[in-house]
Amino acid sequence: MNVPGYEGRLDLGELRRQVDAALEQFLGVKAQQARSDRLPTVPLEVVRDFVFAGGKRVRPLMCVLGWYAACGQGDVSRVITAAASLELFHAFALIHDDLMDHSETRRGRPSVHLSLAAGHRDSDFGESAAILLGDLALAWSLEMYNGAGLEPGQLLAGLSVMDAMRTAVVYGQYMDLDVTPHLTDDVDRALAVICYKTAKYTVEHPLHLGAALAGAGPEVRSVLSAYALPLGEAFQLRDDLLGVFGDPTATGKPALDDLREGKRTVLLALAVRHSDASQLATLRALVGNRYLDEEGAESLREVLAATGARARTEQLIQDQRDAALRALNGAPLAPPALGAMRAVAHALTECAR
Amino acid sequence: MNVPGYEGRLDLGELRRQVDAALEQFLGVKAQQARSDRLPTVPLEVVRDFVFAGGKRVRPLMCVLGWYAACGQGDVSRVITAAASLELFHAFALIHDDLMDHSETRRGRPSVHLSLAAGHRDSDFGESAAILLGDLALAWSLEMYNGAGLEPGQLLAGLSVMDAMRTAVVYGQYMDLDVTPHLTDDVDRALAVICYKTAKYTVEHPLHLGAALAGAGPEVRSVLSAYALPLGEAFQLRDDLLGVFGDPTATGKPALDDLREGKRTVLLALAVRHSDASQLATLRALVGNRYLDEEGAESLREVLAATGARARTEQLIQDQRDAALRALNGAPLAPPALGAMRAVAHALTECAR
Repeated sequence: MNVPGYEGRLDLGELRRQVDAALEQFLGVKAQQARSDRLPTVPLEVVRDFVFAGGKRVRPLMCVLGWYAACGQGDVSRVITAAASLELFHAFALIHDDLMDHSETRRGRPSVHLSLAAGHRDSDFGESAAILLGDLALAWSLEMYNGAGLEPGQLLAGLSVMDAMRTAVVYGQYMDLDVTPHLTDDVDRALAVICYKTAKYTVEHPLHLGAALAGAGPEVRSVLSAYALPLGEAFQLRDDLLGVFGDPTATGKPALDDLREGKRTVLLALAVRHSDASQLATLRALVGNRYLDEEGAESLREVLAATGARARTEQLIQDQRDAALRALNGAPLAPPALGAMRAVAHALTECAR
Repeated sequence: MNVPGYEGRLDLGELRRQVDAALEQFLGVKAQQARSDRLPTVPLEVVRDFVFAGGKRVRPLMCVLGWYAACGQGDVSRVITAAASLELFHAFALIHDDLMDHSETRRGRPSVHLSLAAGHRDSDFGESAAILLGDLALAWSLEMYNGAGLEPGQLLAGLSVMDAMRTAVVYGQYMDLDVTPHLTDDVDRALAVICYKTAKYTVEHPLHLGAALAGAGPEVRSVLSAYALPLGEAFQLRDDLLGVFGDPTATGKPALDDLREGKRTVLLALAVRHSDASQLATLRALVGNRYLDEEGAESLREVLAATGARARTEQLIQDQRDAALRALNGAPLAPPALGAMRAVAHALTECAR
């Protein structure tokens, strides 16, 4: 067991550094290959810059925690490499997502399609290249996982988890995209999108992947799901609140993006449900308005607060985090992992993430 | 051996039907899953319609031929399922490609981003959904391969071939996209793009995948490459000629697309190289012009013929096809597969494909 402190509790900061080291190592090899095959260097640079511009490595950490929780034995460094491959998968998802949402920034920097567009005469180049470089990040996530040095049985057990993960996240994104043009109070649909797009993808599948690599059976997976699904929901609800009320210097993306885009959050569905006619008119006029300015955003924030949508969302976050924590009580999981999973449940759902 | 005629020669039509049956089977299961999980039905329908609207199943056939060529033993039906997964990968590549190229039709029907855009109020929906449904086709290609029922050793051997395939095709597409704004006579660069985008992706990697599933070593792979790379080049050169001179009702895409898009083909580089000043002016004015009409296209075709670019490309096709066929002489591959590989070399490079 070569993770410092595993005997007592897991050191999440150290795990994060090991995940980053695995990514550096893999991308270093890809850079060498591109040079020796005389391939263009921009794709590698863009993917590497994107991966190291930020990110909390939530999915790789969840994967490693799943392995520890399921009492994984053997060489953790290979598990960490496999877990780190999820960060390249996430780069794929975010690069395509920013393109679909026309987001201008990500992690405090220009989004990939905009940075690629700069300095290129063809106005379509940025968007087309962002599609391809998202695809490349996905291709490399697969290659990194396949080449992590796992035992064949481990590797195969993980593949089926990731097959489910990929389908879930794409369906979640599709449901997020395919919304009716008018605002609705359909909280259940917004929760279903969260379930696929975040709860399964960000928490449940990574934990299951780690557990699969540890050889765990359906019982352990079911305990992990009881923690993962409410926590993932709370995580996304917090993200939605931060997208509207958060400090852009902390979140790395402008506080207007979600509102301009008209993202159909639970927060918004709750506001519609509890609006009077005048509040509803404000929501209809400003949500999804691409020219929304800070003044308009402030009006929306007032409606979100006055309708109680903000407070209700805070309450949901607390309820779901508590449900996640309760699922760990007496759970048949390794104690050091349990401590880390409790800490992560707080970290992912607090205001100052 | 359950392929009719294997004792004598392989029946390519029958193989193609088995590939389609495997795709039907897989997508039928996905449809059931979507229904039972109450997921939207459009993604499945779009992917299925795209896959069955046409396509010659070149990559799956190459994969199965690679398996036979390398004297594969055991259950071919699992190999056919694994091979068929390449068709879903190809759907992913084409859906994203059509979006990047703004192609309006594919296989004689509206391209995916346009068919999705129809009937949706949000003007961006078609493009965003096409990104996602391309991603979904890729996710399903992986799931189909992983679930083909291969032996663990077979499955793992195939993964490393597909890792290489995915990186190659994305780099090829990127190089195809990242061209200088002015026309050049750089035939070598155009050939390098073909190598990654077509020769490796369409012929070499599928053959290697089949050979890997048969347990073949580097010697067999190297013989297969000696056939695959020149044949893949000839295949793309034929495609480039058909894109300009072909009958749209046979190719399924308008004869103006490649010219309007300004695709940097070997054909075009040869024309630039052998143009006089007036011919060069015609090329510069019309290639890549989005408003090119049939009259302009006819002027371009005249320049491509008069400069000898068309005849030189025909000669290259013949030379490369001959090189591919020569590589099979005395090759240590199973004779029935050799016969089929010769037939395929002709079929892929003839005018009336």
